[in-house]
Amino acid sequence: MFKFSIFHNDSSCRARAGVIEAGHGIFETPAFMPVATQGDVKAIEPRELEEIGVEIILCNTYHLAIRPGRGVIKEAGGLHRFTSWKKNILTDSGGYQVFSLAKLRKIMPEGVKFNSHVDGTAIFFSPEDVVEIQEDLGSDIIMPLDECLPYPCEYNYARDSLDLTLNWALRSKNALKREGRALFGISQGSFYKDLRRKGIEELVNIGFDGYAIGGVSVGEEHSLREEAVSSTAPLFPREKPLYVMGVGYPPDVLHACGEGVDMFDCVMPTRNARNGTTFTRNGKMIIRNAEFTRDNRPLEEGCLCYTCCNFSRSYLRHLFNVKEILAMQLNTIHNIYFMERLMREIRESIKEDRFLAYKKEFLNNFGRKYECK
Amino acid sequence: MFKFSIFHNDSSCRARAGVIEAGHGIFETPAFMPVATQGDVKAIEPRELEEIGVEIILCNTYHLAIRPGRGVIKEAGGLHRFTSWKKNILTDSGGYQVFSLAKLRKIMPEGVKFNSHVDGTAIFFSPEDVVEIQEDLGSDIIMPLDECLPYPCEYNYARDSLDLTLNWALRSKNALKREGRALFGISQGSFYKDLRRKGIEELVNIGFDGYAIGGVSVGEEHSLREEAVSSTAPLFPREKPLYVMGVGYPPDVLHACGEGVDMFDCVMPTRNARNGTTFTRNGKMIIRNAEFTRDNRPLEEGCLCYTCCNFSRSYLRHLFNVKEILAMQLNTIHNIYFMERLMREIRESIKEDRFLAYKKEFLNNFGRKYECK
Repeated sequence: MFKFSIFHNDSSCRARAGVIEAGHGIFETPAFMPVATQGDVKAIEPRELEEIGVEIILCNTYHLAIRPGRGVIKEAGGLHRFTSWKKNILTDSGGYQVFSLAKLRKIMPEGVKFNSHVDGTAIFFSPEDVVEIQEDLGSDIIMPLDECLPYPCEYNYARDSLDLTLNWALRSKNALKREGRALFGISQGSFYKDLRRKGIEELVNIGFDGYAIGGVSVGEEHSLREEAVSSTAPLFPREKPLYVMGVGYPPDVLHACGEGVDMFDCVMPTRNARNGTTFTRNGKMIIRNAEFTRDNRPLEEGCLCYTCCNFSRSYLRHLFNVKEILAMQLNTIHNIYFMERLMREIRESIKEDRFLAYKKEFLNNFGRKYECK
Repeated sequence: MFKFSIFHNDSSCRARAGVIEAGHGIFETPAFMPVATQGDVKAIEPRELEEIGVEIILCNTYHLAIRPGRGVIKEAGGLHRFTSWKKNILTDSGGYQVFSLAKLRKIMPEGVKFNSHVDGTAIFFSPEDVVEIQEDLGSDIIMPLDECLPYPCEYNYARDSLDLTLNWALRSKNALKREGRALFGISQGSFYKDLRRKGIEELVNIGFDGYAIGGVSVGEEHSLREEAVSSTAPLFPREKPLYVMGVGYPPDVLHACGEGVDMFDCVMPTRNARNGTTFTRNGKMIIRNAEFTRDNRPLEEGCLCYTCCNFSRSYLRHLFNVKEILAMQLNTIHNIYFMERLMREIRESIKEDRFLAYKKEFLNNFGRKYECK
C-alpha cells in the first residue's frame, strides 16, 4: 500500500524522479501538495484539482479534529468520502500548530495541550492520539506529532526538544494500528547540524516509510533555509521519499529538488491567489495593478489553465478590484496549475538529465527573490 | 437576430412555452437569468453555468459603466469576450439603481445624475447614453433607462414619473444604432392599474422587441405583487416576450408563468447560496444548522448537480461554518441548478398542458412562504 520507486537519478546532481504508490493511487515525484487546511483547498473544487493533475493534497489534523471533529469525519466514512477527494491525502500532525499557535499550547512529555483557536476549549493531543485521529481520518500518509521549533532557537532548548520529538516518533510508530498506511519520520533540531544528524540517525533506526525535514520555513532567512536543506537532505536514506514541510516557493522547490527532495507543501500558491498575486514564468504578477487595466493578454502567455485560456488580465483585475469571489477562484486555478506545471517540468528535466539547466533557466526568468508564507 | 416563437400555449391558463433567438444563441422560455452585476455571476465560473444549462445572464450597465468602465469593455471586444460568457446577455439600464441608490441620484427630464456608489464621482446617464453604453457592451437584449419607483408611491408622483419613463422609452428607441440588438420596453406606473394600462398602450405604440414589468419586487407585500402581475400581464401583446424584472423566488416564478410571463431575473438564488441558504423541493435549507452536523445525505436527494452528486450536508455545513469560499461555490452551483431544473420542468409541464398541476404539486412541497431579496 506504500511504495517508493526511483525512476531516474539526474546524472549531475542529487535530484531524482520517482513514483509513490499510496493508499489512493500513484503519483510521480517531485510532487507539490496543495494545502487543504479545513479539508478543502480554498476556493477550488476537487474536480478542478483533478483536472489540473493534482494527485495528493495535505490536510491539517489539528484543524479537522477541532471542526468538524474526528467523529463526524469517521462517521462519514473518512476524509476522502467526506471531502469527495478521491486521490491521496497526507495529514500533518499538529506539530506545525505547536509553532503557529504557540500562545495557545503547552508542551508536556505526554503530548500537547491546546486551547482551541476557535473557542478556547482545552484539547490534549498525545502522539498516540494523533496517529489514531489520522487513522480515523483515513489519511494515506500519516505524520507523527513533533515540536516544530521557532527561529531562532537556543541550542539547549533545541537539543531537549529533539529528544522529545524522537520519543514521540517512536511512540507514534508503536501506536500505528492499521496496515497499509504510511508513517513518515520528521527531522527537527533547529538549524544545528549535529542535532539534525543525531535526530536523523535515530529516526532511521526506528524506521519509517519516508522522512520529512520539519522546522524550516519558520521565519529564517532564505540562505539559512537552503543551507539547512543542503546539509540535511544527504543524511536520509536515498531509497525513501523525502519531504520538506511548508516549502513551496518556486526557487525553494528548485533548490530542494536538486538536493534530492521529493515532496513539498505550502499555502503560498493558494493564499497568494486569494490576495491577487499570481505566478508566471517571469515572476509574480500583482493583478490589481493599474498597468493591467486594458491588458487583454492572459495572465501567463502559453499557460493552458482554464483561467489563462478564457480570461484576460484586464478582466481578472476588474474582478479582483470589485472584490468578486470569482477572482479568487480563477487566480487559484492558475497558481495551482503553475505549480503542477513546474513540478511536471522538473520531473521531465530530471528524467532527461538536464535538471540543473532547467533550474538555471527557470530562475533567470522568474527571479530569485525569496519569499514564503 | 431577435425572434420569439411560441411553442405551445398551455390549454388551461395563460402559460406558454417558447423559444427566443437572440444575438448569442437560442433559449427556451420561460427562462431564469442569473444576475452577473459586475460581469460575473458571483462564485461560479462561466463553464459551470454552461454545464448547468444557463443560456442567458443579466449584467448591470450602471455597475459596469463605473467599473471597469465602458471603454475597457469596448476595447476588450465587448462584454462577451471580456467575461468569456459565450451565450446571451441582457443588460439592465440603471433604472433599478434609480431605486436602489435613491440617495445617490437626481432625476431630471434629460436623464439621471448619479454620484458613484464607489467614490462619489458624478456621472450623468441620459436615455441615449444608456442605449449607447449597452451597444458598446455588446448586449443581446437592451433595456431602456426608466424610473423604477419605490413602494409605496403617491399617485401623482407615479403619474408624472410614468410620463418621464415613456418619454425616455421613445428616446431610447430612437437612439438605437446597431441592428440586430433587441430593445425591450419597461412598464412602470407603480401599483395603479390605470397608469399601468396607459403606459403599456403607449409602449406598444412605440413598439419594442419585448416588454418588461418593472417596479415590482420593490418591497411590496406578496399579494400585491401577484395582483400587479396578474392584472398587468394580459395587457401586453401575446406575440412578444414578457419579462418580470427582479422576480425569481420560485412561488413568484410559478405564479407569473401562469400569467404568461417568459423571463425572470433575481439575485436571490446566488445571494442566498453565499449566505448558506439552499433550495430544495421541500423548501429552504439553512445549511449551517446543527441538525446537519452528521447528515451524510446530499442537499437535495435526486438532484444531479455537481454539489449534490459529490458532497453531503455534513460537509457543506462544515465548509460554511469554517467560512470556506468553497461553501459559497458549491451552494451557488446547487441553487442555480435548482432554478434551471425548475424552469425546465415548468416548460415541460406547459408543453404537456399540465402546468397548473405541476405548480400545485411544487408549491405543496416547497411551501408558499414568500420572500425575495
